[in-house]
Amino acid sequence: MDGLNAPYGGPAGPDDGRDDKFHEECGVIGLWNVPDAAAVTALGLHALQHRGQEATGIVSHDGARFHSHKGLGLVGDNFGDAKVIASLPGMRAVGHNRYATTGDTVLRNVQPLYADFEFGGFAVAHNGNLTNAHLLRRALVRRGCLFQSTTDSEVFVHLIAISLYSTVVDRLIDALKQVVGAYSLVALSNEQLLGVRDPLGVRPLILGRIGTGWVLASETCALDIVGAEFVRDVEPGEIVVIDDQGVHSIKPFSRAPSRFCVFEYIYFARPDSIVEGTPVYEARKAIGAELARESHIAADVIVPVPDSGVPAAMGYSDECGTPFELGIIRNHYVGRTFIEPTDHIRNLGVKLKHSANRAVLEGRRVVLVDDSIVRGTTSRKIVEMVRAAGAAEVHMRISSPPTTHSCFYGIDTPERGKLLAARHTVDEMSKLIGADSLAFISLDGLYRALGRAGRDAARPHYCDACFTGEYPIALPDMTDNATRQLSLLTER
Amino acid sequence: MDGLNAPYGGPAGPDDGRDDKFHEECGVIGLWNVPDAAAVTALGLHALQHRGQEATGIVSHDGARFHSHKGLGLVGDNFGDAKVIASLPGMRAVGHNRYATTGDTVLRNVQPLYADFEFGGFAVAHNGNLTNAHLLRRALVRRGCLFQSTTDSEVFVHLIAISLYSTVVDRLIDALKQVVGAYSLVALSNEQLLGVRDPLGVRPLILGRIGTGWVLASETCALDIVGAEFVRDVEPGEIVVIDDQGVHSIKPFSRAPSRFCVFEYIYFARPDSIVEGTPVYEARKAIGAELARESHIAADVIVPVPDSGVPAAMGYSDECGTPFELGIIRNHYVGRTFIEPTDHIRNLGVKLKHSANRAVLEGRRVVLVDDSIVRGTTSRKIVEMVRAAGAAEVHMRISSPPTTHSCFYGIDTPERGKLLAARHTVDEMSKLIGADSLAFISLDGLYRALGRAGRDAARPHYCDACFTGEYPIALPDMTDNATRQLSLLTER
Amino acid sequence: MDGLNAPYGGPAGPDDGRDDKFHEECGVIGLWNVPDAAAVTALGLHALQHRGQEATGIVSHDGARFHSHKGLGLVGDNFGDAKVIASLPGMRAVGHNRYATTGDTVLRNVQPLYADFEFGGFAVAHNGNLTNAHLLRRALVRRGCLFQSTTDSEVFVHLIAISLYSTVVDRLIDALKQVVGAYSLVALSNEQLLGVRDPLGVRPLILGRIGTGWVLASETCALDIVGAEFVRDVEPGEIVVIDDQGVHSIKPFSRAPSRFCVFEYIYFARPDSIVEGTPVYEARKAIGAELARESHIAADVIVPVPDSGVPAAMGYSDECGTPFELGIIRNHYVGRTFIEPTDHIRNLGVKLKHSANRAVLEGRRVVLVDDSIVRGTTSRKIVEMVRAAGAAEVHMRISSPPTTHSCFYGIDTPERGKLLAARHTVDEMSKLIGADSLAFISLDGLYRALGRAGRDAARPHYCDACFTGEYPIALPDMTDNATRQLSLLTER
Amino acid sequence: MDGLNAPYGGPAGPDDGRDDKFHEECGVIGLWNVPDAAAVTALGLHALQHRGQEATGIVSHDGARFHSHKGLGLVGDNFGDAKVIASLPGMRAVGHNRYATTGDTVLRNVQPLYADFEFGGFAVAHNGNLTNAHLLRRALVRRGCLFQSTTDSEVFVHLIAISLYSTVVDRLIDALKQVVGAYSLVALSNEQLLGVRDPLGVRPLILGRIGTGWVLASETCALDIVGAEFVRDVEPGEIVVIDDQGVHSIKPFSRAPSRFCVFEYIYFARPDSIVEGTPVYEARKAIGAELARESHIAADVIVPVPDSGVPAAMGYSDECGTPFELGIIRNHYVGRTFIEPTDHIRNLGVKLKHSANRAVLEGRRVVLVDDSIVRGTTSRKIVEMVRAAGAAEVHMRISSPPTTHSCFYGIDTPERGKLLAARHTVDEMSKLIGADSLAFISLDGLYRALGRAGRDAARPHYCDACFTGEYPIALPDMTDNATRQLSLLTER
Repeated sequence: MDGLNAPYGGPAGPDDGRDDKFHEECGVIGLWNVPDAAAVTALGLHALQHRGQEATGIVSHDGARFHSHKGLGLVGDNFGDAKVIASLPGMRAVGHNRYATTGDTVLRNVQPLYADFEFGGFAVAHNGNLTNAHLLRRALVRRGCLFQSTTDSEVFVHLIAISLYSTVVDRLIDALKQVVGAYSLVALSNEQLLGVRDPLGVRPLILGRIGTGWVLASETCALDIVGAEFVRDVEPGEIVVIDDQGVHSIKPFSRAPSRFCVFEYIYFARPDSIVEGTPVYEARKAIGAELARESHIAADVIVPVPDSGVPAAMGYSDECGTPFELGIIRNHYVGRTFIEPTDHIRNLGVKLKHSANRAVLEGRRVVLVDDSIVRGTTSRKIVEMVRAAGAAEVHMRISSPPTTHSCFYGIDTPERGKLLAARHTVDEMSKLIGADSLAFISLDGLYRALGRAGRDAARPHYCDACFTGEYPIALPDMTDNATRQLSLLTER
Repeated sequence: MDGLNAPYGGPAGPDDGRDDKFHEECGVIGLWNVPDAAAVTALGLHALQHRGQEATGIVSHDGARFHSHKGLGLVGDNFGDAKVIASLPGMRAVGHNRYATTGDTVLRNVQPLYADFEFGGFAVAHNGNLTNAHLLRRALVRRGCLFQSTTDSEVFVHLIAISLYSTVVDRLIDALKQVVGAYSLVALSNEQLLGVRDPLGVRPLILGRIGTGWVLASETCALDIVGAEFVRDVEPGEIVVIDDQGVHSIKPFSRAPSRFCVFEYIYFARPDSIVEGTPVYEARKAIGAELARESHIAADVIVPVPDSGVPAAMGYSDECGTPFELGIIRNHYVGRTFIEPTDHIRNLGVKLKHSANRAVLEGRRVVLVDDSIVRGTTSRKIVEMVRAAGAAEVHMRISSPPTTHSCFYGIDTPERGKLLAARHTVDEMSKLIGADSLAFISLDGLYRALGRAGRDAARPHYCDACFTGEYPIALPDMTDNATRQLSLLTER
Repeated sequence: MDGLNAPYGGPAGPDDGRDDKFHEECGVIGLWNVPDAAAVTALGLHALQHRGQEATGIVSHDGARFHSHKGLGLVGDNFGDAKVIASLPGMRAVGHNRYATTGDTVLRNVQPLYADFEFGGFAVAHNGNLTNAHLLRRALVRRGCLFQSTTDSEVFVHLIAISLYSTVVDRLIDALKQVVGAYSLVALSNEQLLGVRDPLGVRPLILGRIGTGWVLASETCALDIVGAEFVRDVEPGEIVVIDDQGVHSIKPFSRAPSRFCVFEYIYFARPDSIVEGTPVYEARKAIGAELARESHIAADVIVPVPDSGVPAAMGYSDECGTPFELGIIRNHYVGRTFIEPTDHIRNLGVKLKHSANRAVLEGRRVVLVDDSIVRGTTSRKIVEMVRAAGAAEVHMRISSPPTTHSCFYGIDTPERGKLLAARHTVDEMSKLIGADSLAFISLDGLYRALGRAGRDAARPHYCDACFTGEYPIALPDMTDNATRQLSLLTER
Repeated sequence: MDGLNAPYGGPAGPDDGRDDKFHEECGVIGLWNVPDAAAVTALGLHALQHRGQEATGIVSHDGARFHSHKGLGLVGDNFGDAKVIASLPGMRAVGHNRYATTGDTVLRNVQPLYADFEFGGFAVAHNGNLTNAHLLRRALVRRGCLFQSTTDSEVFVHLIAISLYSTVVDRLIDALKQVVGAYSLVALSNEQLLGVRDPLGVRPLILGRIGTGWVLASETCALDIVGAEFVRDVEPGEIVVIDDQGVHSIKPFSRAPSRFCVFEYIYFARPDSIVEGTPVYEARKAIGAELARESHIAADVIVPVPDSGVPAAMGYSDECGTPFELGIIRNHYVGRTFIEPTDHIRNLGVKLKHSANRAVLEGRRVVLVDDSIVRGTTSRKIVEMVRAAGAAEVHMRISSPPTTHSCFYGIDTPERGKLLAARHTVDEMSKLIGADSLAFISLDGLYRALGRAGRDAARPHYCDACFTGEYPIALPDMTDNATRQLSLLTER
């Protein structure tokens, strides 16, 4: 659910105040036949907060009418108030968390999107990104369709609205046949809760049960928080239709081998989620162990870059026997913004999120374990901070292969030219971040840690385009030379 | 620009906290080639504040992009901040003030409406009401059009979007030929400022000049505040197209005798505006004088119900020779809401807006002059207050004929059953409001005061449907029995 | 209740965005044994809103505890919410409206002031200004008293706290004997409602009855709004003590002839109030009539500068026979702030509050009637606007004598050097404001209009220091050369 | 800096939505001669956020005037805005973070407190609690002092104000000689920055250097964030006076052996701080190791209760050899409040902050390591959650002795009756929280882990009153039977 303004590569500059990570762009959830559905949805969105923190929304349905509330910011900030929840009655709901680039974060782009069709209301929440959204949008606008947002997700809504089929499901299939890209959708019509995963199953979507009701969600952690029971993953290319008769499955696409996003294991998913049958925490420890096997170097302490590097560092430490220590402390009180520094303040080299634990670092040879290097800005600061605290040596070990390519399937990544690994060798990168040595896990090592024999180049099990540039889903907008102007409107 | 939810008769109940008046539903303004167009627009909207206080919006165009800001509340509250104005760059702008019933006042309904068409952006502000909006909307939704708002005005936007003509003006004409109703529009495309008045010219729209630029506005008072010069009224059925080549006029409709809204003279327009060539202040004094000729009774003082009754009371007093006194003081500090009273407070009979000036009233025979009686609730309280202050007699004189019918042309009126004059004789009304006598100006008297010989029943000069029930524009939605549900969505 | 920062002459500069008037600095109200006392207090404060619009506060007492809420802005904005009123339980309350210069308007200065004394709580609201507040404050600080605010009114609180007497009333008398200045106070202790007027009775205070309870208020209009009954004026130098036994009167000062503020008649009080036995509306009409007798000139229309000039203009017109017309329309929708204009906007000469009614003015010889000229800035703009609307001649008539001196008794006035009349003759002033002629009522004429034989120079009936410079109460701080720094703290 | 309302034992009930921890009540910081002092103070307060999250404030001094801004909530929320920082000019500042019980958190209680003394301004921030504050306050009120807040800290201000000494330092000493309790103060006068630690040094305070300026702060982590250099701990009973001549030390009290709060090592201080010469992280690991030596039991995994239990669990795991695993995941996105649950939601047993990592727990014998058990509410939920995730056995190990007594020295603790350990044996506690076994570190073991031979009962090195009931500082208010009413005022 990328903002369409920057379809192939994100707009964020080097000083945008974000951490230097790829970012999952969305989390989705849908409920059917669950008391206080909006409250349960809010709790599920809270558990999925790591998949998007910029905006959040819930649309509920009370059997007759839809009710919507959306806002910028965290779930707790928008749905912590009992009055807001009370304004969202009904036993059915869909919800969405959004990660978005600043320019796009205006309220009209916050999901779930809602539309009044001829046959009733329709609310949809989308995780992923369409790769022919521009082409479709241009054609739809030419036909007289008026777009409310600048998101690719709105294309679904118009395609459904103009479909000549009569049922919601047939119109949805009609729309899905026209779009190209990665998508996990949950949608609510007057009569059904719908869940859809794209033919390759790039983004996750799971089905759970709560009491006599049903839940669709991006990850199992959204089930755990409300005591729901995991039923199964929605399959790639499957449409799940939930109504009072139960759950029905439709598979309108020809079968294709799935290509689940491998980065969900490395960084995006929550460590306590179980993704496609594999616990994420165990996967990360196994990746750390493989990393140690491939590239360990003599050291005194293994130090994770918190919080995401912790399980890999534990696996690394277990494998190599060098002690694991919390050499970097993370301050969790950081708000969204802080002081726009004067030059004097800037020169202080303030780190709001991390501080060095000198007692652990001073005089030691340190192996830092992190999950990825994107632009390298944070890595450079971390290495500098660890050295300033007295470390004798600083070696960086990364639990993913070098990220050399942008993602066009729903992850916010810098454009390729800003990816450090796209422009530099590992040795150059090591120098740029100021480390004594740098190593990444190998691509085959990553597959091995996930229980494969290695990467099968002919038929890779995962989508690993960010490491390989092999994009399993076509990129039609890429070759479209028309201007990308989506809206002439700037809102305040 | 009625909220479509209650197309024929307003939803407001007797205790809705509003004053007991008909309410003009909108004011519009548009500028072309004016420096700081948004600031000038805001000033014009401020001068037009009496035409709508619930919400306000401005869309500017800087030659390349459109910029929008809308908000609930007064112009000064939304556009008083220099930062807001700075976010609306450009020398072209359209603005809108909205009067709306509570339920409708959600941000998605605030105008100007904006759409990205295939050929560029388009912002439109509408004063009036379409009488076939439901029928058109249903057909458009069936075709796959997605409505963003529940206003009738959005119908214009979709009709333009789907038109098969190629230029903006041709598409606009195509749309106008399909709508029925009263409308004064100002619209801004990438290349023109457009002004439109419906074939009968029910609602006002004037053209002015400011420096080398142009202004379209609902009333001349919006010109005065910024020192602009009045050029002429836009004619009924005329489209005015303003671009860098100047002003062009198009008249796509067959000629019809105009039917300007007579209530603009009685109450809606500002007293310092000049409407269709007649100063409103003079018109009101003339109406008051005619009222005195028709129905004066022996009294000691003529007291206006402030503020709207003042000029008529002055004309009345001049005509009959009985002194004019400020027997009722209006408190202008009242905010929109005040204490929700306990029973004790309610029993105090608090009047937040009016207080009696005992020195003028005590022991006197009082003629109260007001402009209209709608439900009668305020009149009853005013009479009671004047008696409590010691008046010996209280006679009510009204500077309009009895309002027996609802308006469907852009004025917020109660449904017919709630209009006091629709259910009661003048004598009954007098008793209900507690007056010693009550009289209204006659319909012919009203026409005489406005310089006509009387009402020409065959071809009345004005729209006077609220007094006569003769609706000069067809009411297609009226005979449409389909449900009126416009949107299944409730927003918070 | 002047902010002490600028004790002798107000700090407001010529471009401070306020109207060019003297401003009453406060309204006070107190209730005893009245159900929903806070709600009734809020209504009374609403009726007294003209006496102060910058901030407002209420302290209630429920028999055991005090409850306080204060805020910047209007009464309706702060006390319109039922939840706020519910947080102020009890049948006793005091309230305050504050007019204040911008710099002073921080929350710590908003009244009623509250203090926990050894013997219980104490809340006090003050209208007036102490003329030895600096001297007293300095002495108190030297003793170790910590001031919370920068208002002169806090001096009362500390003097009461440190008094060696034991009862509240004795401590209050002890304090009153030490202060010099003008003051009307209402105060609430654990056991009494107290009302005090300074020995000369410069500021008003009246006593009323509501049910079985009592009201003290600045003006009778605060009684009318809640249906309370006027009992009497509190006398100059009187302390009124109200408890469950009834009303007791104490007169601790030696008798002196009263000197009520004459400007309350001219401008401050509400026209429907009855002040010291005289209806304000009638007084203003009488002043206008006297003004006409003294200085009428041949003209076509008498036009008030709204709203305050209206009654005087009516009296003027009645006396001279020239018709009264609303040649200037006031826009009551103006918010507190509006656009900070660009140069282009500034050059438009925008008038947000007033507009000319061209129909009345064009080609006419106009007499404008206003109540005062302070700096002359508004008068100049008004004259200019009236001329621009086509007036043939513009004559200005003022219903007060020239204001040549600052007020130190609780009215916000510019420092003397900024008073137009302090630096210029009437002829010069006429030229400066651009009028064809200018006249003020004479001092004797003013007294005559108020029913006196003229001003008795030996023993003037009113405080008229702003016209004469004869200050009836000493000004000790005036001759104190110490620096005026009250607090080193700037709050945000 | 306790709210005095509940001087001996905190008011929080079992369902107050807080975690079940003792809470440090304040963090303080002061700067002298540091460019952008307010910005640096805000960063330091951010690093001290763990010591108080309810409110925060900064007072700066620009050489002439003081500037203050305070607010409820986090440092980043109040001081993240560059405009706020710009309103606090100067190279000197003091700041404060406050942890407070809900009822007390009104703005008048937020520190630093500010007063205008005869000789200038004075701002003070206090960490600790006075144990004779009620007695002093009563005496001061009797003398005529007016208290603005209900905090004990305001006693300092009045004692200084009424002191008969002439210099700030002498007045401060005069005040300190009258108070009893625990306090670390930083204060700013017109001419000095002052730091004070009570005679026993219960609460921490350290001195650092930044450029040519100085910093006083509660912990070293406030130095690290701005790149300041640690100089030394302020000594128990020492007054540090910093002015342009440098740092001066005054020791007005007779020497006493220090009694630093041992809980700072266990929980309060940040792990990367160095407290009284000992790194907190190392201390916690050593305590964990000692805990394992004392009470390890056969298990499969050692799981910390995040985040505070992590270092102790690591030390424990290292000592016993059983693997350390992240079996509980903490969600750091939790806002301050969340949905007020309906019964249905409540029955879901939602855990907003913690989730079980089933992959680690299922089928395993688990040792949970936490730092303390206060009421036991959280421990019970954690054990339940771990069992629900499939743990075969759940053993709880606590890195502090049982907390049997309340703290009166500046820590928010429940009243004694609500401390689980005050009413139950360890075996009973184990059953109540549902664990298979429960053990606490011994008191001697705690001292050993901190490098002592064990607890010297005659002269214990630390304040350990919460474990022993031996209060090293007298509790005069405790035996004072007067009512505790501090203020009759309730503010809204």
